Amino acid sequence: MRIDILTLLPEVFVYLNHSILQRAQAAGLVDIRLHHLRAYATGKHRATDEPPFGGGGGMVLKPEPLFTAVASILNDEQVNAPPPTPAPAHPIILMTPQGRPFTQSIAQELAQHERLLLICGRYEGVDERVRQHLVTDEISIGDYVLTGGELAAMVVADAVVRLLPGALGAAGAAETDSHATGLLEGPHYTKPATFRDWKVPNVLRSGHAGQIARWRRQEALRRTWERRPDMLLTAVLSEEDKWFLGQLAAGEQ
Amino acid sequence: MRIDILTLLPEVFVYLNHSILQRAQAAGLVDIRLHHLRAYATGKHRATDEPPFGGGGGMVLKPEPLFTAVASILNDEQVNAPPPTPAPAHPIILMTPQGRPFTQSIAQELAQHERLLLICGRYEGVDERVRQHLVTDEISIGDYVLTGGELAAMVVADAVVRLLPGALGAAGAAETDSHATGLLEGPHYTKPATFRDWKVPNVLRSGHAGQIARWRRQEALRRTWERRPDMLLTAVLSEEDKWFLGQLAAGEQ
Repeated sequence: MRIDILTLLPEVFVYLNHSILQRAQAAGLVDIRLHHLRAYATGKHRATDEPPFGGGGGMVLKPEPLFTAVASILNDEQVNAPPPTPAPAHPIILMTPQGRPFTQSIAQELAQHERLLLICGRYEGVDERVRQHLVTDEISIGDYVLTGGELAAMVVADAVVRLLPGALGAAGAAETDSHATGLLEGPHYTKPATFRDWKVPNVLRSGHAGQIARWRRQEALRRTWERRPDMLLTAVLSEEDKWFLGQLAAGEQ
Repeated sequence: MRIDILTLLPEVFVYLNHSILQRAQAAGLVDIRLHHLRAYATGKHRATDEPPFGGGGGMVLKPEPLFTAVASILNDEQVNAPPPTPAPAHPIILMTPQGRPFTQSIAQELAQHERLLLICGRYEGVDERVRQHLVTDEISIGDYVLTGGELAAMVVADAVVRLLPGALGAAGAAETDSHATGLLEGPHYTKPATFRDWKVPNVLRSGHAGQIARWRRQEALRRTWERRPDMLLTAVLSEEDKWFLGQLAAGEQ
């Protein structure tokens, strides 16, 4: 897979060169390339932003440098051809608070593509013509205000690359992560068995694989029930899961 | 304000030293300090993680280094006292997918505090006793799986610091941001007035401040209606806003 990221701040993406993302790149699973938007701007000052038409605070990213950059990065003449143009072969995604809310299932969808191009919005946002005529998708990582799309692009890259076959060292470790199963994960414990007065639950030290698996599933259900009951609407639940949730609802567990 | 961040990867927080976060620190509005969790681990290998009790993939962050680190960072003897201990004076927040979903109103709530301590989870997660007896809050930035809490801590720091008085250069620029008003923002346009065949809407070049403000409000309502109707349930709406939404619902706008 290849991920291109178009940004005014390529120097802040250090996160991508550590841990699982670093190893995935070293192993050739993903090729992540950062592109400085300013390199595609023209004129004496290479301006990438201007004040908005109609006044108001803030600056707006100009359309030309973004169109030029995307065409160049995708090496795709079609992007610079006059409209109507055919749809581009790869997703061109604007990171914006107005986008569709990012979820684990969108990460799974994006992980199927050969290439992704992520555009980091900044300042007051991007010229509307970029939305209308250049990007093919818009993604938001949550309902909060950030300074730019850089953290959002790192979030998407992290979530997507983790899903590439071979990206995680310990096979299977990802399968029980919160949100990967549609449930929150239950508690984990490690050494020491007693810390201050607080002990690890006996079942986890019992050696009974079946009982441990059952306890973990029930604690995942309990935590989701307590903290994010909305997630139970879409989680895949067995008959035993449903029985346990019924017990929780009746206050019997 | 002071923000302490406890992490196994302090080197990835370069984002905090750029743009608005950099200027807010230079201006003395916020003091952000990174703390390496390993510095608080003991033993020959300074281990911060161990395999989970009960087996399964991944590693779990041990309780002792986290308790020691938090007590040291807050310089708070109470954290290391035997239970029951009084509640700590400052929020101690675990970044975890199991936390309460982060929103702009939580950012506003956190911006009221003098100090925040953010703990970045990693691997399979943290020992449950950290949740039960050390942290006072748990926050998730979204329903997706990330490699650790580092990006989440940067997201929270960015969203919170932007809200500190004086952090944004252009006063008022933040007020109309998506999510700050409870609505998505409408379109922005900048130069050129005509790009390829695509023109800026006439109203934005009319010079009529009242008409521009009305158009922007209506476009914000329209975008929210089209993309995130869920947000309209909690947005503060005027009678005129409601009339316009009625028109949208009737297909007359």
